Amino acid sequence: MNLAQTVMERCDVLASCTEEAGAITRPFASDSMRRAQEHVRHWMEQAGMTVTRDNVGNLRGRYAGTGDGVLLLGSHLDSVRDAGRYDGPLGVMVAIAAVQALQDAGRRLAFAVEVLAFADEEGLRFGSTYLGSRAIAGRLGDEDLRRTDADGLTMAEAIRAFGGEPERISDDRWDGPRPLGYVEVHIEQGPVLEDLGLAAGVVSAIAGQSRYEITFTGEAGHAGTVPMELRRDALVAASEFVTGVDAQARIRREIVATVGRLSVRPGAANVIPGEVTLSLDVRSPDDRKRELACADLLVLADQLAPRIAVHVTPVSERAAVACSPRVTALLQDAIGQNAVALVSGAGHDGVYMSEITDVGMLFVRCKGGVSHNPAESVTVEDVGVAIDVLGRFLELL
Amino acid sequence: MNLAQTVMERCDVLASCTEEAGAITRPFASDSMRRAQEHVRHWMEQAGMTVTRDNVGNLRGRYAGTGDGVLLLGSHLDSVRDAGRYDGPLGVMVAIAAVQALQDAGRRLAFAVEVLAFADEEGLRFGSTYLGSRAIAGRLGDEDLRRTDADGLTMAEAIRAFGGEPERISDDRWDGPRPLGYVEVHIEQGPVLEDLGLAAGVVSAIAGQSRYEITFTGEAGHAGTVPMELRRDALVAASEFVTGVDAQARIRREIVATVGRLSVRPGAANVIPGEVTLSLDVRSPDDRKRELACADLLVLADQLAPRIAVHVTPVSERAAVACSPRVTALLQDAIGQNAVALVSGAGHDGVYMSEITDVGMLFVRCKGGVSHNPAESVTVEDVGVAIDVLGRFLELL
Repeated sequence: MNLAQTVMERCDVLASCTEEAGAITRPFASDSMRRAQEHVRHWMEQAGMTVTRDNVGNLRGRYAGTGDGVLLLGSHLDSVRDAGRYDGPLGVMVAIAAVQALQDAGRRLAFAVEVLAFADEEGLRFGSTYLGSRAIAGRLGDEDLRRTDADGLTMAEAIRAFGGEPERISDDRWDGPRPLGYVEVHIEQGPVLEDLGLAAGVVSAIAGQSRYEITFTGEAGHAGTVPMELRRDALVAASEFVTGVDAQARIRREIVATVGRLSVRPGAANVIPGEVTLSLDVRSPDDRKRELACADLLVLADQLAPRIAVHVTPVSERAAVACSPRVTALLQDAIGQNAVALVSGAGHDGVYMSEITDVGMLFVRCKGGVSHNPAESVTVEDVGVAIDVLGRFLELL
Repeated sequence: MNLAQTVMERCDVLASCTEEAGAITRPFASDSMRRAQEHVRHWMEQAGMTVTRDNVGNLRGRYAGTGDGVLLLGSHLDSVRDAGRYDGPLGVMVAIAAVQALQDAGRRLAFAVEVLAFADEEGLRFGSTYLGSRAIAGRLGDEDLRRTDADGLTMAEAIRAFGGEPERISDDRWDGPRPLGYVEVHIEQGPVLEDLGLAAGVVSAIAGQSRYEITFTGEAGHAGTVPMELRRDALVAASEFVTGVDAQARIRREIVATVGRLSVRPGAANVIPGEVTLSLDVRSPDDRKRELACADLLVLADQLAPRIAVHVTPVSERAAVACSPRVTALLQDAIGQNAVALVSGAGHDGVYMSEITDVGMLFVRCKGGVSHNPAESVTVEDVGVAIDVLGRFLELL
């Protein structure tokens, strides 16, 4: 059996490690995660790696090299609720497969390869993302450890139950010399590679993101008795904003903007909407462009209807993370022809790994661009391409 | 105490007849309705009327005249949930006050005056409106009687428990000679009179109404990873429709159009909307204009985004009812100067009463145009104007 088929089968095995029968739901420090890690530990050891688990719960498999350097590979083993089987696990399985190829050939590189299987990236259990890579970047603090899950259990308690020592979480921080880089293979979660007919592409940057909640307040009224010219319809104003957001994002470069949530009050067919609350999500690989777009959109919200009150609440903001030009160039060389560079609109562990090393990412085409959904799908051929690209990258480094 | 003050106090008394403490909720054939009718029967008798109750539960008070003719006055005693105290009761109380004025003066008119206190107009209990006036128009059938309330009780059972005989509901139908007219006093439920600084106005027509449910189907996707040019955002399309509806209604005469309900799926901040369902409500006193506006708006929905599927479900349609020019002219004469004519965007019992006689309506200014809300408010001065206008109308007829 070739390595790509093995990766596909291993993703199926991990899919069976779930908290919910008939669906894939694998939260941080859960029983399903424990079972998943038993499999992964075994596969790492088969590939000749020495395996440890740190306090937050990341599995770390090290394949020794002939010199002192270390290259980090990895992705996450946790999932969202009712997830697909490739977002996260695919990157860990491809990394193990690349090491397995070295082991099968009896080869040692001039540097060690350490595969990181992060314990949490999605943040399903504690509503706080990137727990695994944050621990390695030394950015997981007491405030996080006091967070509670739906059952009222603190993160510290969950870590202890999983076998870690929460008071020693700072020991998880990377303390060796600066790694040669961190490379993650991940499904694209978008339709661009499929649209271009390509199996894989490199990532130039992980987009920065701004989120807002915006409330438009007008005046509710009877849909039959208030003349058009006396109305203060909050939904009409909000709708102008939604179309304005779309238009602004389309005429700008390197910006995506989305209103994904919108609720109307009172929300009855025969009542003029008095209040609308909506979400605005703006992303760009260029922080300046994102900030400008946000500023312009908030002005638009404020100015579009003089008789509608607009209240803006900033929800979150995250700066863009540029991938390392050096690592990215090597990944492109490893791909060869048609090595397109994409922006990742979704966040990844590279956001925090960039604090300790040069980051690069390889995206794998996924069917319809679908992710966070049981319908996530990749082909064994494309997985084979990803394993080959990662193998050539290791030779080029 | 003058009659206007009496009307205000009686509306307060009726407000205390409710199924829910601290709110006004008075459904058809309920205990609270029984208590309300005991008061109203007493007030009718005080005004010299002979009172009967028909099978559906309408109270009918007749003040005899010297001739054979009969003029009908009235409104409804039931309410929506958490209602105001004037929508319905005010019209009954003003009618009784006008008769009381005749009685106080020892006068008989050339025609009888019959005050109808309808048992149901809002349709709260059985989800079917105008039960009282439909019974009088002979338009309440077996299908209605089989309707069930939230407790599974049929309308027939409710009528029987309230003292009526459901199998004799057809006896409620008006079987005398054609009445001289039906006149209803009602709060405006809109802001026009307040905007014009007028206490009262006449109604030229009760608007016709078309309702639709429209679904826009695009494709859900990740808000970060799908480029703007590859999106099929259902909310962007729906928003263009909402602003189009507003713009179309504003440039047309005698049309109001409202999108009051709108729901987004999946409805998460980081997911491009895949499906939006919204309500469309179009009203006009001119059926032809309403039909044209609806046709144009449905074409707009269908054409605005080629990559979005649009599905339209007609929900209901109701033709406009013109008020009688003769009755309306007399009401305007009774008002005197500044007798504006308004369209009623809300439905009223006149819709069915128009099947048996000439209909006229007098609107009374209400604060902020608010109705179906505990904040409903009218002034004692404006109520005094309404009583005077109705009294002059009786003299002019």
